[in-house]
This record gives sequence, structure tokens and C-alpha cells, in this order.
Amino acid sequence: MTDKASIDFYFEFSSPYGYLASLRIDEIAAKHVRRSVWRPFLLGVVFQITGHSPLTEQPLRGDYAQHDFRRSARLQKAPFMMPEEFPVLSIAAARAFYWLEGRNPAQAKQLAQALYFRIFGEGQNISAPEAVIAVAETLGIDGEELAAALQDPVVKERLKTETQTAIDRGVFGSPFVIVDGEPFWGADRLDQVDAWLETGGW
Amino acid sequence: MTDKASIDFYFEFSSPYGYLASLRIDEIAAKHVRRSVWRPFLLGVVFQITGHSPLTEQPLRGDYAQHDFRRSARLQKAPFMMPEEFPVLSIAAARAFYWLEGRNPAQAKQLAQALYFRIFGEGQNISAPEAVIAVAETLGIDGEELAAALQDPVVKERLKTETQTAIDRGVFGSPFVIVDGEPFWGADRLDQVDAWLETGGW
Repeated sequence: MTDKASIDFYFEFSSPYGYLASLRIDEIAAKHVRRSVWRPFLLGVVFQITGHSPLTEQPLRGDYAQHDFRRSARLQKAPFMMPEEFPVLSIAAARAFYWLEGRNPAQAKQLAQALYFRIFGEGQNISAPEAVIAVAETLGIDGEELAAALQDPVVKERLKTETQTAIDRGVFGSPFVIVDGEPFWGADRLDQVDAWLETGGW
Repeated sequence: MTDKASIDFYFEFSSPYGYLASLRIDEIAAKHVRRSVWRPFLLGVVFQITGHSPLTEQPLRGDYAQHDFRRSARLQKAPFMMPEEFPVLSIAAARAFYWLEGRNPAQAKQLAQALYFRIFGEGQNISAPEAVIAVAETLGIDGEELAAALQDPVVKERLKTETQTAIDRGVFGSPFVIVDGEPFWGADRLDQVDAWLETGGW
């Protein structure tokens, strides 16, 4: 089964729906004996192309979004708290992920999960590099090494490349899942992702 | 059971997801012994407030939307064909609906269903009043009476009022369902509407 294609899970750390999807994606992957590949990217860069703005800043839609975040979280019984400072600056978080992934992929995913929980499970601000490092240290990651990595041009470039790859693959929102070449946008498409894997498509 | 609140189904005739939702909403209402109230509105007026544009005109998202319309239609086994001329000008269609609703509510819904099928089931253009009238005539509606109604200031004003009411209630997209004060945006929220009616909310 190891030659089956991965489930590519694109997400922005500042995305509430990305957080909610992150709590389900691995279960869906495991059910279908697939590997999930987590890919944080910078939605702000995508917004420069699409001309979009964060949901919460949009007239009418913003109020609904705030309501829907909480209702969606309750439906899947996920802890949820909007951070007071929003949107979150996710550059440090995403850089930390890619740096760590090069060394320890499993731990990189754990870091992403811990960061998401800090943001939307506890409503805390992780925009500053120090805040990301603090979360990483709870997982036993060396804080000084990570601090240096966050300024490493190679790591910075990696995040740029990954974000560009996401755009090239048609990713325009968070979360965004690509499985067997099929794109699915939104946490509310995960049931379809599940069904697509089950049936091979319709 | 007749005192139970209605399920308010807001939709724009030019909305593919509105069409897909229209094929399911009455079944959901019937299941919970509720009455559905169909409410066409002009999404273009809402876009002037929100600054949004039709999905299909947005970079990246437009291509995905075209793909997702078809995939969503296949999933619910609905006939689907994008009209060549898109977006559809829906003013005549929406005016016709409200004029007819004042005389024969059941037939007004039938007209809405027939118009939606003409647009997205058959991919035809119903922007012109004559095209709306032609569809209405297949239901036995008097074409000359309808032609006059489409120019009636009272009918025109009614559509404006309904669109403003939609905006006042927070409607910013199509389809949009409000049930027991709870707002649900998108065809992909209908399962949640069903669950909300089943459980009384979560």
C-alpha cells in the first residue's frame, strides 16, 4: 500500500477551518491507508493574487464566519477559542514546520498540531517567533536551534517555494486537500474527500 | 405542526449552488414537517456591499468553482450544464417569482424550479424577460399578464424590498438558509440544516 499517492493537506496557520480540518485529516488518511502530507503555506501571498481578504474582515460574511467557526467546532466537538489578535502572523510557525520536517517529519506534524491548538484551542497569539519557539520547546525541540533556523535563508526560501507550489497547484484557500489530483477546498469538503477515497471518485 | 417556523431559503437564480440546494431543500423541510419559503434575491446588490464578485470570475477560485459545480451535481445525481452566458441576469426571473407568489404560491415555487432547471439543468439563458415568460407559459401562466407584471412598479419594488430584507438578515451569498434564527450559507451546509432541525441545534 505504500505506493499509494499521498493526501496533500494545505493549510494556513491563521485559518480556523484549517485547524478544524487538521483534527480530522489524519483519521481519514488512516482509514484509507494513505499518508497525509501537511503543507502550511502563506494565505496572505495567495490573497495578493486573488484579491481576497480574511473572511473575518469581510462585511456581512465576517459575522457569519465568526458564528460558523464556533458552530462547526461544536459539531465536531473540538475545543475552539478565537485568538484576540487575528489574523495570526504565521510566517514563524510555517518556517518552523519546514525546518523541522527536514529533520523529523513526525515531529513536524506534532508541532503543527501543537501550534494549531495553541492558536484555536486556547486562543493564544503565536505570531512572534518567541511564541512559536515556546510551543516547540514543550515538544523537546531545541529553542536556540529553532531561533537560528527561523532566520536561515534556506528555511525562508523553502516556505516561499512551498507557497508558490501551492499556488501552482491551484490552492487558493485554507484548508485545501489534493488527493489523486482531485482538489477539495474547505473543511466542509472532508466528507467528500473521505467518499472520494472510498469510491475512487464519482 | 403548522405553527412551526418556516425554513427560509434565499437564493439567486444565477447561482449554481443555489440550484443544487433547490433540489434538496423541500425534501429536508418535508422530513421535519416544516414549510419552506423560497426567497430569490439579487446577489449583485449584495456584492455591491461586500465587494465580492461572482465565484467564476475570481482568479484560481473560478476554475475550482467550475470543477466543483459539476462534481457536486454528480454527487447528488442532478442534471447540470453551465449556461454559456454567465452570470445570468436574474431580475426578470425574480420579479416573475414574486408576482406569481402573490397569486399562487405553489405555482411560484414551480416556476422557480422550472427556471432553475432551464438555466442549470439545460444550460439555457433566461436573462431576457421573453425567456422567463416562455418558461412560465409551459406552466400555463398567462404570458401577456406576466410581461406586464415585469414592468409593474409594485413588482419591481417588491424585489428591491426582498433583497434588502435578505441583506438585513445577514444574507451575503447563495444559497442561504435561515431556520429558527440560525443562518446557514452554502449548499454544503444542507446536511447541517437537516441535523439542526433534527436535534434542535448543538
